[in-house]
Amino acid sequence: MRIGVLTGGGDCPGLNAVIRAVTRKGIETHGWEVVGFRNGWQGPLEGDSRPIGLNDVEDILARGGTILGSSRTNPYKTEDGPERIRKVLADQGIDALIAIGGEDTLGVAKRLTDDGIGVVGVPKTIDNDLAATDYTFGFDTAVHIATESLDRLRTTAESHHRALVVEVMGRHAGWIALHSGLAGGANVILVPERPFNVQTVIDWVQRRFERQYAPIIVVAEGAVPEGGAEVLVAGEKDSFGHVRLGGVGTWLADEIAHATGKESRAVVLGHVQRGGTPTAYDRVLATRFGLHAVDAVADGDFGVMVALQGTDIVRVKLADATAELKTVPLERYAEAEVFFG
Amino acid sequence: MRIGVLTGGGDCPGLNAVIRAVTRKGIETHGWEVVGFRNGWQGPLEGDSRPIGLNDVEDILARGGTILGSSRTNPYKTEDGPERIRKVLADQGIDALIAIGGEDTLGVAKRLTDDGIGVVGVPKTIDNDLAATDYTFGFDTAVHIATESLDRLRTTAESHHRALVVEVMGRHAGWIALHSGLAGGANVILVPERPFNVQTVIDWVQRRFERQYAPIIVVAEGAVPEGGAEVLVAGEKDSFGHVRLGGVGTWLADEIAHATGKESRAVVLGHVQRGGTPTAYDRVLATRFGLHAVDAVADGDFGVMVALQGTDIVRVKLADATAELKTVPLERYAEAEVFFG
Amino acid sequence: MRIGVLTGGGDCPGLNAVIRAVTRKGIETHGWEVVGFRNGWQGPLEGDSRPIGLNDVEDILARGGTILGSSRTNPYKTEDGPERIRKVLADQGIDALIAIGGEDTLGVAKRLTDDGIGVVGVPKTIDNDLAATDYTFGFDTAVHIATESLDRLRTTAESHHRALVVEVMGRHAGWIALHSGLAGGANVILVPERPFNVQTVIDWVQRRFERQYAPIIVVAEGAVPEGGAEVLVAGEKDSFGHVRLGGVGTWLADEIAHATGKESRAVVLGHVQRGGTPTAYDRVLATRFGLHAVDAVADGDFGVMVALQGTDIVRVKLADATAELKTVPLERYAEAEVFFG
Amino acid sequence: MRIGVLTGGGDCPGLNAVIRAVTRKGIETHGWEVVGFRNGWQGPLEGDSRPIGLNDVEDILARGGTILGSSRTNPYKTEDGPERIRKVLADQGIDALIAIGGEDTLGVAKRLTDDGIGVVGVPKTIDNDLAATDYTFGFDTAVHIATESLDRLRTTAESHHRALVVEVMGRHAGWIALHSGLAGGANVILVPERPFNVQTVIDWVQRRFERQYAPIIVVAEGAVPEGGAEVLVAGEKDSFGHVRLGGVGTWLADEIAHATGKESRAVVLGHVQRGGTPTAYDRVLATRFGLHAVDAVADGDFGVMVALQGTDIVRVKLADATAELKTVPLERYAEAEVFFG
Repeated sequence: MRIGVLTGGGDCPGLNAVIRAVTRKGIETHGWEVVGFRNGWQGPLEGDSRPIGLNDVEDILARGGTILGSSRTNPYKTEDGPERIRKVLADQGIDALIAIGGEDTLGVAKRLTDDGIGVVGVPKTIDNDLAATDYTFGFDTAVHIATESLDRLRTTAESHHRALVVEVMGRHAGWIALHSGLAGGANVILVPERPFNVQTVIDWVQRRFERQYAPIIVVAEGAVPEGGAEVLVAGEKDSFGHVRLGGVGTWLADEIAHATGKESRAVVLGHVQRGGTPTAYDRVLATRFGLHAVDAVADGDFGVMVALQGTDIVRVKLADATAELKTVPLERYAEAEVFFG
Repeated sequence: MRIGVLTGGGDCPGLNAVIRAVTRKGIETHGWEVVGFRNGWQGPLEGDSRPIGLNDVEDILARGGTILGSSRTNPYKTEDGPERIRKVLADQGIDALIAIGGEDTLGVAKRLTDDGIGVVGVPKTIDNDLAATDYTFGFDTAVHIATESLDRLRTTAESHHRALVVEVMGRHAGWIALHSGLAGGANVILVPERPFNVQTVIDWVQRRFERQYAPIIVVAEGAVPEGGAEVLVAGEKDSFGHVRLGGVGTWLADEIAHATGKESRAVVLGHVQRGGTPTAYDRVLATRFGLHAVDAVADGDFGVMVALQGTDIVRVKLADATAELKTVPLERYAEAEVFFG
Repeated sequence: MRIGVLTGGGDCPGLNAVIRAVTRKGIETHGWEVVGFRNGWQGPLEGDSRPIGLNDVEDILARGGTILGSSRTNPYKTEDGPERIRKVLADQGIDALIAIGGEDTLGVAKRLTDDGIGVVGVPKTIDNDLAATDYTFGFDTAVHIATESLDRLRTTAESHHRALVVEVMGRHAGWIALHSGLAGGANVILVPERPFNVQTVIDWVQRRFERQYAPIIVVAEGAVPEGGAEVLVAGEKDSFGHVRLGGVGTWLADEIAHATGKESRAVVLGHVQRGGTPTAYDRVLATRFGLHAVDAVADGDFGVMVALQGTDIVRVKLADATAELKTVPLERYAEAEVFFG
Repeated sequence: MRIGVLTGGGDCPGLNAVIRAVTRKGIETHGWEVVGFRNGWQGPLEGDSRPIGLNDVEDILARGGTILGSSRTNPYKTEDGPERIRKVLADQGIDALIAIGGEDTLGVAKRLTDDGIGVVGVPKTIDNDLAATDYTFGFDTAVHIATESLDRLRTTAESHHRALVVEVMGRHAGWIALHSGLAGGANVILVPERPFNVQTVIDWVQRRFERQYAPIIVVAEGAVPEGGAEVLVAGEKDSFGHVRLGGVGTWLADEIAHATGKESRAVVLGHVQRGGTPTAYDRVLATRFGLHAVDAVADGDFGVMVALQGTDIVRVKLADATAELKTVPLERYAEAEVFFG
C-alpha cells in the first residue's frame, strides 16, 4: 500500500513532527510506502512528489517549517482540479492521502472524500480556533513565545514607567491573547470576541499606574474597539498588510498615551510567534496526530480528522470539524478579568 | 471572610501561580482576606502565617519555588495535630483552607475535612500520576526541560558515535519519560510500568548503530529490568540517595557499553527538571486551578480537589482523587514503540 | 565609609547584577555601608535613598530591570542641581557614588567629579556604542533575543516563500544588527553607518529567491537609504514614536514587495530586546564591572569608568570614555557581506 | 584553488558555523572549491571527502554537532600517516587544509605544516583553556546552559532547604565553573586550579544555611580536595568513566550531608553542556574564526591558528598556541570569592 502526505496553509510548529510520525508508523508498523507531495494541494495537482524513507525524517522532529513545503492552492478553484488529483494518485498508485492543514486544506479534504478520494485530515491552526479538537499543535508554541516576550517586556515597562501594548496573533479568536496574557501576567487582555470599551481599558491602565506598576495590555490582532474596525484609521494607510500586523496595538497605545499623558508603546510580535522549533507539548500532540491519522487510513476510515479530546486522540467527521469556529467563551474571558488593573 | 493557603511537598513550577490566583480572586472578586501559612502543614500547626495582599503576588507568577515555603509535615503524625490546627484556625479567624500539594498533602486535606475543617485541594505532582486530573502543573515544565536536554544531547551522541542513556524523573509512573522521549526523539523509552528486557534494549541500540545513528535511551528513574531493582547493585553502594538519582541509567549505560563495545554514557537530569520558571502551559493551568479552588471555597464545597478534564476545570472528591495512581497505559506506550530503534 | 549607587537611563539587562556586585563587595570586602539612590540622578537630588544589605541583593542577579528604578533626570538641567546633590551626600554621609548608566548619566558623573564630588562610572548601553570598552552588558542579551527571533522567522519565511525584514535596535550604531544578523544567518544586514542602496538590497533579495530560499533582511532602526531619512515618509505619520520603532523596516519591506512582486513583511522586535533576564555573558560582565567599580572607589580613583579590554576590566577617564561613539568599522561590515544574497 | 576542511575531537557548539563561514568565503570571495574531509584526520588519511557547496551550508549555522563528523584519529600514530595524507591531498588536488579542533588536532596541524603540508588551525575547546585566544567558541554555550540549570536549581534548593552540588565540565581548567558560578549566583565555586579545603567549603555552606538560604556549590569535574583525587574513592568503583562524570560532585554532596546533617544532592550536568545549538556569541565567534582562517590560507600563512584578542581576530603560531594551558588565574578566582557563603 502507498499513502501520500501533504501540508497546506501557513507555517505552524509541529508540521514536521506529523510528517515524521506518519512516515515511521506507515513504514514500521504497516510496511507501506510513504510519498510526500510538495506545496500543499499543488503537489497532487501536478504530480509533484517524492518517496519519504525513515532517514528522511530522522532529523526533522524539532525543526520548524515543513520539509514538504506549503501553499494555499485550492483544487476546487483549479480547472478539473479533482480529476487531475484522481489521475495523479492513480498514476502514482497512491491509495490514500493524509492532509495536514487548516480550514481550507481540510475543506478540500472533505470535498475530495465526497468525490471518492480517500483522505484523512490532521488539523493545523496556530490560532487554536477549531471547534472539534481541544487543542491544535502550534498553539502552545505561539503562546510560549508570546509569554517569553511578556516576561521580558515586564521589566522594561516597570523601569520606564510606561504602558506597553503587546499585539499577538488571533484575527477571529483570542486564544493566543487569552493564554499568553494569563501566563505573562497581562493587566488587560483584549480579544476579537468582545469589542472593547476604550475608556474601560484606560481606567484599568490608570488604576495600574496608581498602584505604582506599569500596565501591560495584550491585544489580539483582531480585537476591535466598540464602534468597529473602521475606527482604526491609522492602519488603513499601510500598503502591504500592516493593518493586520500593526493596527489595533498601535492605535490603542496612541489612545492610552493621549488619555493618560504617560508614554505608551506598541510591540507587535508578528511572525515570530508562528515559526521555529515546537514546544515539547506541540511535538507530542503533532506526533500523536500523525500516528492516529495512519490508524484511520489503515481502517479505511476516510473523511475524518484526528482530534484531541482530553488526553485521547479521537476521529471526528471533517464535515463537523470545519463547521464552526471555536471562539473564547465568556466564562474563560471572565477568569482572566480577575487579573485586570 | 478569611481563607488560608499553603503549599506542601516537593518543589514544582507553578506553585506561586496558584497562590497569586487564589489571592487575586479572593480579594478582587470576594473581598476576602487571604492568609499564607508557612511550610506546608507546619504553618497551621504552629500558627505560622502572614496576610497576603495584591502587591505580595505582583511579581511571583513567573517564579519557581513557593513564597510560602514547603515541608512534608503531617499533622496526623503529630500529637494532637488536627486539634492544634483547629485551634489555630479559630484563633486566627480562618474560615477555610486551600491546600496545594501532592498525595500526602491532599490526604491530610481529606482527613481534615472529614474532621470538620473546610479544605479545598489543588493537585501538585511533577510526575503527572494523579488519576483524577488530565494533567497537573509542573509536568509540562519538567517535560520541556528534559526535551531541551535531549535536543542538545542528540548532536553530541551523533558526533561521538555514542549511546546516551538519559535518566529522567518518575519513580512510579513514566509520564515524563514518555512525553520527553516522544518530544525529544528518543530511540528507546523505558518506564516503571513495564520492566524492560535488557537484551531487547540492546537489540534496539544495535539496530540504531547499524543505521549509522547514535541511540538515545530515555529511562525513568523508577524503571527496572526484568528481575527487578535488586539487579541494580551498583546504585546500592551510594550513601545519600544516589540510587534513586543515578541507579538505572548508570547501570543500563554500563550494560550497553559491555554488550555493544561502543562507548555509552549516562546523563542524570535530576533536580533541574523540577525547578525554575514554569512554562506558559503550566502557568495557565496553575492559575486556573487557583481561581477554581476559590470558587469551591465560595460555594462551601469542601473535601474536593480541582482537576483538569479536557479544557474544563472541575471538582472531584479528594477521596477519589487520591485513591489510585495514574500510570502510563499500554496503548500510550505502544504509540511510542513505533519510534524505537 | 558609605557609598551610594544609582542607575540612570533606559532599561538594560544586567543593572541588578552590577548593584548586587557593588553591594556584596562593599560590605563583604570593605565593611562599607551601601546606599541605593532611587530613579537615577533624581535620588541624590531629592535625597531619595535607602540602605542596601546583603539580603536585598540575594535574589536579583538573574532579574531584568533595576531595583533602584531609573530616570533621565539631569542635575545640570536642574536649578542648583550639583549643589543640592553635594548637600544630600553630606547630610547622608555618602563618601562616593557609583553611577551606572549611558552617555548622559556618565556625562553627569564626569561633571560632578570636576565639581569635586567623587563618582565612579559603570557603562550601560544596549547598543554597545561606547568607544572605551570592548563590550557593555545588555548587548549580548539583545543580540541573543534578536537571534532567537531570526531562528524562528527563518522557517516561516521559507515556508511562505516570503521576504522578511527584521528591524532591530540601533539608532546610531549597527552592532546589534551586525551581530544578530551574523548569528541569525541574515541574507542582508543594514546599519546606520552605511546608507544603503535600495536597488542593491533588492538585487540581493532577488538572488536569494532565485536560489530558492527566502531572504531575511536585518535592519537597524537607524539605518537609512541613500537620500536620507526623509525618504521614510510612511513613518512620519505616526504620532507617538512609531517612526523610530517601525520606520525603516516597514518602508523597506514595502519597497521589496513592490520591486519583486513577492510578499514581504516587516517584523519590528522593539522593546523585547532590552528587557528580561540577562544572558550568562552579561551577568558575568556586569558583575565584574560592579566589583571593579568598588575597587576604584576604594582607591579614591574618581572620574573614571570601568571598561572591558580583552578579558581584563580596566579604568578609563570618563572624559575620554564619553568623547566618541563606537560605530561599526568598515572591515567588520565587510566580514558580514560574505553572507549576503 | 581547492581547500579542505575537517573537524576533530569532541562535540562543540559552533563547528558548523565555522564550516559554513569557510565555505561561503572560499567560494564567494575567492572562487575556490571547498572539500569536506570526514571524521577528523581520518578523512585525509583515507581520502574520505566530498565537495561542499553553498547549499550544503545553508541550514547549518544554528545546528550543533558537525556535518563532517569527527574522530580522535592521529596520523602520527598511524603508519605512514603524514605520507598517506600528502598523497591523498595530491590525488585530490587539495592545496591547503583548515583544521578545526583542540590541542590534539592542532598539534597534528602543526607537525603537518612542519612536514610541508599547508594547514591553518581553528581552535576548538569547550573548556576555554587555550592560552593564545581570549575565548573559544562553545564555551559561552556551555556557560549559558550551566547557568540556566543553576537558575532552575536555585528555587528547588530553597524550597527543599537543601545543599545542591552542581558538577560542571572542566577537567584541567575551571573556566566553565567560574563563569557559570558567577552568572548563576553560586555560593561556592571550586576549580581544578585550587585544591579545596573541605572544612572551608562546609563553613561557607553552614553560613549560608544560617542566613536562611540554601547553598549551591558549583564544582568543576576536575576539582580535587586537598589530599588529591585518591580521596574520591567512591568514583573509582565505576566501570565506564563515571569517575570523571560523577566523582567529585557526588563525593562532596556526601561530605556536606554528613557534616551539616542537612540533605544534600549532587547534580552532574555532563554532556548537556557541550551539545545543541550555539549561543549567538559563539555563532559570531565561530563565523569570524572561519572567515579569518580563509584569509590566512589566501595569504599562504600556514602553521598558524586564528585567535580572538579583544574584539580582533588575529593569527598566532600553532607552536605557541598549543604550548601552555590557560588556567583560571588567582585574581579571577578572588573576584568570585566575594560571593561565597
